[in-house]
Amino acid sequence: MTNSNALILEPTASAYAYPLLIKQLLLNAMSLHGDQEITYRGEMRYRFRDFHQRIAQLANALGALDVKPGTTVAVMDWDSHRYLESYFGIPMMGATLFTVNVRLSPAQILYTMIDSDAEVLLVHTDFLPIVEQIRDQLPGLRHVVVLSDDGSVAATSLALAGEYEALVTKAARQYDFADLDENTKAVTFYTTGTTGDPKGVCYSHRHIVLHAMATALSVCSPGGTQRLSTADVYMPITPMFHVLGWGFPYITIMLGLRTVLPGRYVPEVLLRLRETEKVTFSHCVPTILQMLVTGAEKTGQDLSGWKVIIGGSALPPGLCKAALDKGMDVFAGYGMSETGPVVSLALTPTRSAPASAEEDLKLRCSTGRPSLMVDFRVVDEDMRDVPRDGVTRGEIVLRSPSLTPLYFKKPEASEELWRGGYLHTQDIAVMFPDGVVQIVDRLKDVIKTGGEWVSSIEVEGLITQVPGVHEAAVIGVPDEKWGERPMAFVVTWADVEAATVREHLLDHVRARRLSAYAVPEIERIRFVKEIPKTSVGKVNKKQLRAAPPEAA
Amino acid sequence: MTNSNALILEPTASAYAYPLLIKQLLLNAMSLHGDQEITYRGEMRYRFRDFHQRIAQLANALGALDVKPGTTVAVMDWDSHRYLESYFGIPMMGATLFTVNVRLSPAQILYTMIDSDAEVLLVHTDFLPIVEQIRDQLPGLRHVVVLSDDGSVAATSLALAGEYEALVTKAARQYDFADLDENTKAVTFYTTGTTGDPKGVCYSHRHIVLHAMATALSVCSPGGTQRLSTADVYMPITPMFHVLGWGFPYITIMLGLRTVLPGRYVPEVLLRLRETEKVTFSHCVPTILQMLVTGAEKTGQDLSGWKVIIGGSALPPGLCKAALDKGMDVFAGYGMSETGPVVSLALTPTRSAPASAEEDLKLRCSTGRPSLMVDFRVVDEDMRDVPRDGVTRGEIVLRSPSLTPLYFKKPEASEELWRGGYLHTQDIAVMFPDGVVQIVDRLKDVIKTGGEWVSSIEVEGLITQVPGVHEAAVIGVPDEKWGERPMAFVVTWADVEAATVREHLLDHVRARRLSAYAVPEIERIRFVKEIPKTSVGKVNKKQLRAAPPEAA
Repeated sequence: MTNSNALILEPTASAYAYPLLIKQLLLNAMSLHGDQEITYRGEMRYRFRDFHQRIAQLANALGALDVKPGTTVAVMDWDSHRYLESYFGIPMMGATLFTVNVRLSPAQILYTMIDSDAEVLLVHTDFLPIVEQIRDQLPGLRHVVVLSDDGSVAATSLALAGEYEALVTKAARQYDFADLDENTKAVTFYTTGTTGDPKGVCYSHRHIVLHAMATALSVCSPGGTQRLSTADVYMPITPMFHVLGWGFPYITIMLGLRTVLPGRYVPEVLLRLRETEKVTFSHCVPTILQMLVTGAEKTGQDLSGWKVIIGGSALPPGLCKAALDKGMDVFAGYGMSETGPVVSLALTPTRSAPASAEEDLKLRCSTGRPSLMVDFRVVDEDMRDVPRDGVTRGEIVLRSPSLTPLYFKKPEASEELWRGGYLHTQDIAVMFPDGVVQIVDRLKDVIKTGGEWVSSIEVEGLITQVPGVHEAAVIGVPDEKWGERPMAFVVTWADVEAATVREHLLDHVRARRLSAYAVPEIERIRFVKEIPKTSVGKVNKKQLRAAPPEAA
Repeated sequence: MTNSNALILEPTASAYAYPLLIKQLLLNAMSLHGDQEITYRGEMRYRFRDFHQRIAQLANALGALDVKPGTTVAVMDWDSHRYLESYFGIPMMGATLFTVNVRLSPAQILYTMIDSDAEVLLVHTDFLPIVEQIRDQLPGLRHVVVLSDDGSVAATSLALAGEYEALVTKAARQYDFADLDENTKAVTFYTTGTTGDPKGVCYSHRHIVLHAMATALSVCSPGGTQRLSTADVYMPITPMFHVLGWGFPYITIMLGLRTVLPGRYVPEVLLRLRETEKVTFSHCVPTILQMLVTGAEKTGQDLSGWKVIIGGSALPPGLCKAALDKGMDVFAGYGMSETGPVVSLALTPTRSAPASAEEDLKLRCSTGRPSLMVDFRVVDEDMRDVPRDGVTRGEIVLRSPSLTPLYFKKPEASEELWRGGYLHTQDIAVMFPDGVVQIVDRLKDVIKTGGEWVSSIEVEGLITQVPGVHEAAVIGVPDEKWGERPMAFVVTWADVEAATVREHLLDHVRARRLSAYAVPEIERIRFVKEIPKTSVGKVNKKQLRAAPPEAA
């Protein structure tokens, strides 16, 4: 619904229309921070101005492989300066960057390579064996460029167009990045639910620029210790192949931050780089956080002054506490492949600081408060906002300038995602009076017992607080009397009794923090060796339900 | 030049396109900061949620006066909650807010009212006498609404549609602000050069939203003491009728800051409000800064913790020093009516902190470093970037997402402004290797003596450092031998000799900080009672040249 009588400004003929383009994120970076540093694993380092020039060289190298506006270029790499160059150089040409999820099975990678219409592939030597398996099923793939840290290339049956560093180094240093329509497709990647084929999400230059600006402002503007500033040193620990590293590589380059790219994630290497490169800002999933905390506990390393956003799945309070005890300033963020991704952050608000350590912990582990410019609603089935009472559940639906406008080549799923003009997250949440959101379940994971809802995420969080518990997953299992009952799968690193877990939950029931019907029976608390995960490290509840692991 | 082969994303039918609209600046403000406070002079206060509701009521009240999308609504008021409501409510209806410069002459106000096609006028009782003078020459003006602090309305010959508070209070509380094209004209106001008619600049919703985001990020992201955060308390001291209060009312509402609106500027009231309301962030022109410093010196008030951006004209180092001595954290910003306005800010950079107090002072008084997303160039006459050597002069030309795309109804001036696809500021500057810019003159004010350029701004800054000097203006005057020579007009608040001024300048020549030919002869240093100013308080050099004031 638009007001057609409103006056649309008609610029004078010579006025520059200024489309929002990824290349403009480099304006300040190059004008003011040309001598800022980017390092790969602490082993190689160069300046922003070298980065800028290499982007031009990359574009020339790809141009020689007939990459044109509209061409899809796939990348398979660990977090590297090469990946960062691709983040900018490929979309700046008008081409589409496809960040391949290297954790998928070869069959899934094949599917996404075909679905994305990838014509050129930049692939790290580590992943050549995968590509060798699927190469002959990719007739549309015209060129394979290999990425190598030392210039050497392992023996391969693949026909290669060359080695990245060699191609870039010899390419011309001038490239005129022409203006594009800001709605040009810049990036694509695939979201892997637990059902069906991977679905491709797409972001335009405009989406990416506005996500960078709004998210940066949401992290930079608060008054507390967690806020990001240009004095910070950045190291991603959410892979750059995963949801654009949550968009932070674009943000930190825009702001001119020193950037540390850690390659393949090895906890000891990450902890060493944090220390030697004086890293102060990162983001990762809870599983990696657990490894970092465990690693630092082993060595006695102090992690003070390290701000880390936790996303991908809920931040368990027990793990959050352990990280805080190591000095890390951890807090949760929320988003999905479809949402840009960041739409909320659990930074401590400047006003109304948490009353107690317990409140502070709860806030840090919450879904957070909506980012700037995000129309963040929690609604019932008729799209009415639920009361902000911290109790009433609803689905999170969103509007923002940075949401995927479709699933690639999937018109039905696209319409389902966007039904009613809001993006449906399928996350069930409650909202508190101060705007803090708490996800309580995935729509498809909700547990209903005796007519009452149980939040699997809440029960999981409480179980991880039991000393010795490493991880927990709770699903609904059929029950004759109650319809469904919660069942917990628990991984421990020390001896823990089911009765101890149950007692811990009952303590919370007695303190009126948990409903009695949310506590699994003792025979429904099962200690297992491992909880099944999806390719991106999330608990695979579909598999848990279909094939629950045996007791360890 | 666009790449037409690039893939433009085609959203699925139900996807929300998210135009960038002023109403979205309220999303977080209302969701997270509904209980935040806005006060008018410390005498009246309400919450953000009241503000939000009153915007809807204002829209209904204006709707009853047949304000529709495309209607221009003029406002003449001091800085008030009413003005803030107009900043949002009027453009959110699809109408155009026209911020009338109340310092113009009645004839100029008449001109701008006609030129802007204003149909409705909201006018504070203080300005009724002006409107009475011009009302019968404004046949297109359909309604006059009077604004009054206490509800009383002075006797007037004007036919009034009502009093603002009464109209707003009785209006319905629901208003559905429909989506608009983001290029809808949101605001217009007039720039008054020293020649010709005032020229109307226009900004769309998109311009305003992107200016708010980019400027906020430029002020929030640095690491130093000057950075803005959501913990700050904001009070504008650049009038809201002047270049949208430099865009900060939009920024601070977006971020949820406590907001203090001081009404008409009275130095004692401003200083009192700073203290009682604990104001920590403001912006003003040097003339006001001088009044504040002088006022605080009288009372012995300490102004520590007050961040103040200085713009409108150059920040003289002497005044900057005096403000720093009072504890104020002052630094310059730069922009024009045509530029959104903010395009650069002289915040201390996080890295490479100034080496000395002298360096710090120089940086704070500089034109600053380009804001995010601003393509800020200093170019020669052939549009080539001048070397970043701090010496070579060029004109500042700009591209940003927030520049006026035209002068209203002035196609030739619009094309002149935008010739070659860059906005021409007519400001002559040098750029340093680290990206810091220093304006040295206005294009039309440049002084050329014996074939060499003299920076009038530089000489003015040095003269104001002489103890007892209040203000200085330097122009070029004809000289038979040298073509032109600099001449200084100096206002003092204590006895100062011309020889002292000249000696001070010669000291700088001896220290190689100034060229000898930039020092005016003793007879060209004239002490005057007053320096002529434009309506917005800038030195009127045209008048200085045409009718130089007599020696005091």
